[in-house]
Amino acid sequence: MKPPNDKKSDEFSRIALIQSKLAPTSPRVSIGIGDDAAALNTPAPPNRILACTDMMVEGVHFDRNYSQPSDIGHKALARALSDLAAMNGRGLAALFSIALPSQIGDDFLEGFYEGAQALARSHDVDIIGGDLSSSPSSLFIDVTGIGQATHPISRSGAKIGDWLAVSGFPGSSAAGLFALKNRSTRNIQAISDSLAKAHLRPLPRFDLLPALNSTQGLCTSLIDISDGLASETHHLAKNSDVGFEIDARSIPLHPDAVALAALMGEDPLHWALSGGEDFELLATLDSTKVATPADAPKGFTVIGRVVPQAQGVTLIRPDGSRQALPPLGHRHFTTG
Amino acid sequence: MKPPNDKKSDEFSRIALIQSKLAPTSPRVSIGIGDDAAALNTPAPPNRILACTDMMVEGVHFDRNYSQPSDIGHKALARALSDLAAMNGRGLAALFSIALPSQIGDDFLEGFYEGAQALARSHDVDIIGGDLSSSPSSLFIDVTGIGQATHPISRSGAKIGDWLAVSGFPGSSAAGLFALKNRSTRNIQAISDSLAKAHLRPLPRFDLLPALNSTQGLCTSLIDISDGLASETHHLAKNSDVGFEIDARSIPLHPDAVALAALMGEDPLHWALSGGEDFELLATLDSTKVATPADAPKGFTVIGRVVPQAQGVTLIRPDGSRQALPPLGHRHFTTG
Repeated sequence: MKPPNDKKSDEFSRIALIQSKLAPTSPRVSIGIGDDAAALNTPAPPNRILACTDMMVEGVHFDRNYSQPSDIGHKALARALSDLAAMNGRGLAALFSIALPSQIGDDFLEGFYEGAQALARSHDVDIIGGDLSSSPSSLFIDVTGIGQATHPISRSGAKIGDWLAVSGFPGSSAAGLFALKNRSTRNIQAISDSLAKAHLRPLPRFDLLPALNSTQGLCTSLIDISDGLASETHHLAKNSDVGFEIDARSIPLHPDAVALAALMGEDPLHWALSGGEDFELLATLDSTKVATPADAPKGFTVIGRVVPQAQGVTLIRPDGSRQALPPLGHRHFTTG
Repeated sequence: MKPPNDKKSDEFSRIALIQSKLAPTSPRVSIGIGDDAAALNTPAPPNRILACTDMMVEGVHFDRNYSQPSDIGHKALARALSDLAAMNGRGLAALFSIALPSQIGDDFLEGFYEGAQALARSHDVDIIGGDLSSSPSSLFIDVTGIGQATHPISRSGAKIGDWLAVSGFPGSSAAGLFALKNRSTRNIQAISDSLAKAHLRPLPRFDLLPALNSTQGLCTSLIDISDGLASETHHLAKNSDVGFEIDARSIPLHPDAVALAALMGEDPLHWALSGGEDFELLATLDSTKVATPADAPKGFTVIGRVVPQAQGVTLIRPDGSRQALPPLGHRHFTTG
């Protein structure tokens, strides 16, 4: 963690505040917060180091009207950890760069790091540094996730004939955001709690990886659906040079999302396809190792098949009609 | 490199643009740009992985009136690499998170990555990923630097009696910014080229590390002076629980900075103490291994001594008077 570059008067007190929120680091942290860079003891071979960054910009990715500082801290870290899970990895460490507008103060940082640290602890991840700056305008947060993987799974291994499978209930986060935005206008409280939680406190799905690794070569490509099912399927298609056929009738929807959509005249399938921010995993599964959809690893639902690239990405609608599924995914709520 | 979260129409073309600017990655990159996270082959023990992040916010850290996109790309990476040098490390990889306001387009990204990639190549560093987003306001850049170090040197090892030594000419960057801001008002071109370069194209000082490592234990603590000599000396003081005495008459000033200051009625010592952004190294040296200032490692000038913590940080002024040196350092130009 480096000092804020332009608020010298607060510099040492802010670093102290952040350090107070973060538990002593694990033995793998050789040098932690408060130096030019952090140093981690190298994991033993044949591990590979994973690294990713994820940005959250106020007015694009979150709205403080709906999210507490601790929710934002949780989700910022969850976003990066989800990328590590999507590589078949585990988390080791995280760094936060935060640019703060003048009207946002230490109380925000305090809540933010509480939320982030609680999630970090639950996944044995150390927050080892970052950077602080002022911002002339919006609140910007960038998270760096550092992890390790013995056998990383990329986006590029899908083969024709593989199953396409998704974890959890895609669209729950978008349904949750819809519920949060409409919580005062109608009485939807009873069906919105779990959905709001899916939006505010999504969890990286490290818990699903043992099932995917139970048989070598079972999972041929992997991605998280932080940008929505449609967009992420196109990423797998592009990186693997294949096409996909998705059966909308197989997409698992959260019962509360279905109920909320019915009550409010919305389409829950739209939330699932283009809602994003679910942090669930989307995997292709070798069909020689997963004979039928019922044989999918625990936590996954088969929703389609890998087809030749020339066929593109096709959606079979609930009425049985077929349509090309465009890559348009999640447009974040304040810019869409 | 992940896709921009909210500009789906540009997503694939922007990733392709960035990939076109970046050379094929080295053998140590297992999975590069275009996946959820990048994967690096783990360096052989006893190396340690270093990680740091550094932010640049338009209107706080840079001004596009003075900097070309390629300058900004160069400096963003140099900033992170300088932190790795300040840990006695080397660079392995970098990731860029960029939030772009709508009026800044692909031409900016193109120049930015050209500048960053040229510097990355010259230090055998791979740009392996990042994130792109829109920004409702300022241009925001966060760089993650990943490196390795066999023997990292922290800020916390300074001992009473050690010499304090700095590399290069502190204050050159601040003098360069001053020259850039005043280039149209007076004829100062002849003395401003090298200073402007120091501001726009600072280099991380990996070249100095062999001399610091020539004798084990010679360098007891190390930091870069990206926030200015005064502020960074206070960091060493705080982290090492010591005080410092700096002799202003020993601080090496660039002859062009001295000439520019004389011409414009400025104080070059002020630039050195609080100007920042020099990316030079500030080191404490074991006086049992460096007998006199003349024995300092190549590239370093002794400017002071480590004293007991209770004495604080003292500056001996050019006139011989002594004053407490406050930690106030670099206040970036548009907020100061």
